[in-house]
Amino acid sequence: MKDHPRLDAPAADISAVAGFRAGAAACGLKRGGALDVGVLLCERDACAGAAVFTRNEVAAAPVRLSRQRAAAGRLRAVVVNAGNANCCTGERGAADARETAALAASLLSVDEERVLVASTGVIGRPLDMAKLRAGVRAASRQALEGGDGDLAAAIMTTDLVEKRASASGTLEGRPFTVAGVAKGSGMITPDMATMLAFVATDAAVAPECLREMLPRVARRTFNRVTVDGDTSTNDTFCAIASGAAGNAPVTDAHSEGGRVLEGALSAVAGELARAIARDGEGAKHFVEVRVTGAATERDADLAARAIANSPLVKTAVFGADPNWGRIIAAAGRSGARLDEAKVTVSMAGVAVFDRGEPAAGLPPDMAERLGKPEVAIELDLGLGGSESFMWTCDLTDGYIEINAHYHT
Amino acid sequence: MKDHPRLDAPAADISAVAGFRAGAAACGLKRGGALDVGVLLCERDACAGAAVFTRNEVAAAPVRLSRQRAAAGRLRAVVVNAGNANCCTGERGAADARETAALAASLLSVDEERVLVASTGVIGRPLDMAKLRAGVRAASRQALEGGDGDLAAAIMTTDLVEKRASASGTLEGRPFTVAGVAKGSGMITPDMATMLAFVATDAAVAPECLREMLPRVARRTFNRVTVDGDTSTNDTFCAIASGAAGNAPVTDAHSEGGRVLEGALSAVAGELARAIARDGEGAKHFVEVRVTGAATERDADLAARAIANSPLVKTAVFGADPNWGRIIAAAGRSGARLDEAKVTVSMAGVAVFDRGEPAAGLPPDMAERLGKPEVAIELDLGLGGSESFMWTCDLTDGYIEINAHYHT
Repeated sequence: MKDHPRLDAPAADISAVAGFRAGAAACGLKRGGALDVGVLLCERDACAGAAVFTRNEVAAAPVRLSRQRAAAGRLRAVVVNAGNANCCTGERGAADARETAALAASLLSVDEERVLVASTGVIGRPLDMAKLRAGVRAASRQALEGGDGDLAAAIMTTDLVEKRASASGTLEGRPFTVAGVAKGSGMITPDMATMLAFVATDAAVAPECLREMLPRVARRTFNRVTVDGDTSTNDTFCAIASGAAGNAPVTDAHSEGGRVLEGALSAVAGELARAIARDGEGAKHFVEVRVTGAATERDADLAARAIANSPLVKTAVFGADPNWGRIIAAAGRSGARLDEAKVTVSMAGVAVFDRGEPAAGLPPDMAERLGKPEVAIELDLGLGGSESFMWTCDLTDGYIEINAHYHT
Repeated sequence: MKDHPRLDAPAADISAVAGFRAGAAACGLKRGGALDVGVLLCERDACAGAAVFTRNEVAAAPVRLSRQRAAAGRLRAVVVNAGNANCCTGERGAADARETAALAASLLSVDEERVLVASTGVIGRPLDMAKLRAGVRAASRQALEGGDGDLAAAIMTTDLVEKRASASGTLEGRPFTVAGVAKGSGMITPDMATMLAFVATDAAVAPECLREMLPRVARRTFNRVTVDGDTSTNDTFCAIASGAAGNAPVTDAHSEGGRVLEGALSAVAGELARAIARDGEGAKHFVEVRVTGAATERDADLAARAIANSPLVKTAVFGADPNWGRIIAAAGRSGARLDEAKVTVSMAGVAVFDRGEPAAGLPPDMAERLGKPEVAIELDLGLGGSESFMWTCDLTDGYIEINAHYHT
């Protein structure tokens, strides 16, 4: 019996979770015939579903609609498109989001109020509804027939890799699974790091309990990711629990079962969040920034975020350059309390700055260490016991190439 | 008689201001024999001098020393080196800064307490004092002999162009000049945007009056510039007034003469600040971001800074892409109050988003307009009467190239 949920390798597909069906279709919103519409359906009516959204003051039409629908904790289906964000599209955009959800609801025989709608892609262009309607029909058909549509592929925009994660555990001796998909990969920063993430579980959980867990899970996972400091207008993280695992529904997030389920959700969301950072636009390195010894948790957080968002730190990582001065300078402007004489910095496990003094020398293989796909940056402020962390990637010519020429 | 100070074109050199001498030398801190040490000397003992510095918690040794010396308002000379920032260099760095100032003071026959010392370049390496001593001697000799050393060149690091500006006006009918030099060009953000700027004037002004003016001038000029959101550990803006113009010393910043002098200082500092943005690392475009119609000045400021710092907005400008969605999204996450339906955005003078709706079409020469060297971005929040602005540049592959490979 394993009580502690563990990540599965390889990850199970979201459509393999008991009680779920997925559909995907290509309707021409993306070029080249790539999948661009997805549907996720929970077969069981008595399911729980919750979501958290971007905190950007400018929210896309689907986010505004889905916020209302998520409030009840009873989401049962998701309809999502890539290639167009349906954001800054005025009244027409709001009507298009409603119509998309209504169409999916009718095809899937789900109460319209229980359908979450999400979009990702270019801002400010009206949706091509003729294409999208055809796509929703095809994706819904696949969900109802085969049920194993490739949702991870359908939600990609500039992502280079599909992002999937799953974890398994037991609740009262009954095995359960949590599986999710996500997409990045630019306009990514804390306060919903991911553009879109959908997670399904067969565990049974009370709607209000799932709703309580989700923001906490996001805070520890997606909100730890930054690619470029820009927060999207469309960020959505949604979880639906079918209850097909047959456990007595978890009703208390702080019970043993609640902790097991929240642990599994966090494991899957964390893996997806790291995958987003790893696949940040143009990324060559995944970077974990860890700040310890801060006077307060807020200080640790400010310093970690400033370092993870610093273009100079991120270009230094790209150049495999042990330029710790940029790390200290970023922490210094972060607002965190800091005494240079107490600061220790390490990069890739090597102490490069020790309580106010540069290291006497660096190991001969320093550039090689920094050239590895995962680079750890650690800053010990030496002032207290608080800590925090962030996940990010380096800043490369690939990011510039992608973002200077996307859109038109 | 011209009372309103005007920028001179071409700009006068800082060493041409009555009462000032400059010296420059190459001592090997930069590669390839480029000038890397500069000295600015006010010949008159009865001068006023003030400075403002970085607000980064990590301040370089020369900044910590110069802060104390600037407090009295009596700065009379500057000694500066490029190629090494003398930052995060512990006790040794503090001793090196003191020694450098003492050496210049002795060579120039100035009270040591009235010498400002500044450094710019790589963080975390001890200064090569043997080289720097030779450089300070040579630069001081040139200041005392020729007096027209190229200070603008001596302070450059990754700058591509020398930055000079000057303005002329009259005080009580007597002509006066303000001339300055500055260097950028990365690790640049508000709260001292420029790494280094030195301004000289022959106007006579009381020390406490100059000290009152300088932070106001910085707020309107250098603090409006951002290149990459990173604040340097070495930022220094220093102004010295020789009094050689012969006007009765300005003692009240709010008098007519005070306003004329502050106007001239602002004109020169503004021109230098724009030059820094224009020469931001890898920059192809200068960008002025103007936010109007905000509910409060703080809101206008938050929105302008978020837009000017957004990597996505900056890469869109590089790509000459009218991607206004990124502008609205950046404003949306800035913390400023914003109602999408009231927002109007224009780029290069073209309204691309009008009170909640995308423009029906864009002019055929839109890409050409955005391809010009100066691009205006305007955001009208439609909520009130407050406004703000920022100066920045685009984010290009040149920035990545420079910053991935600088240092090692």
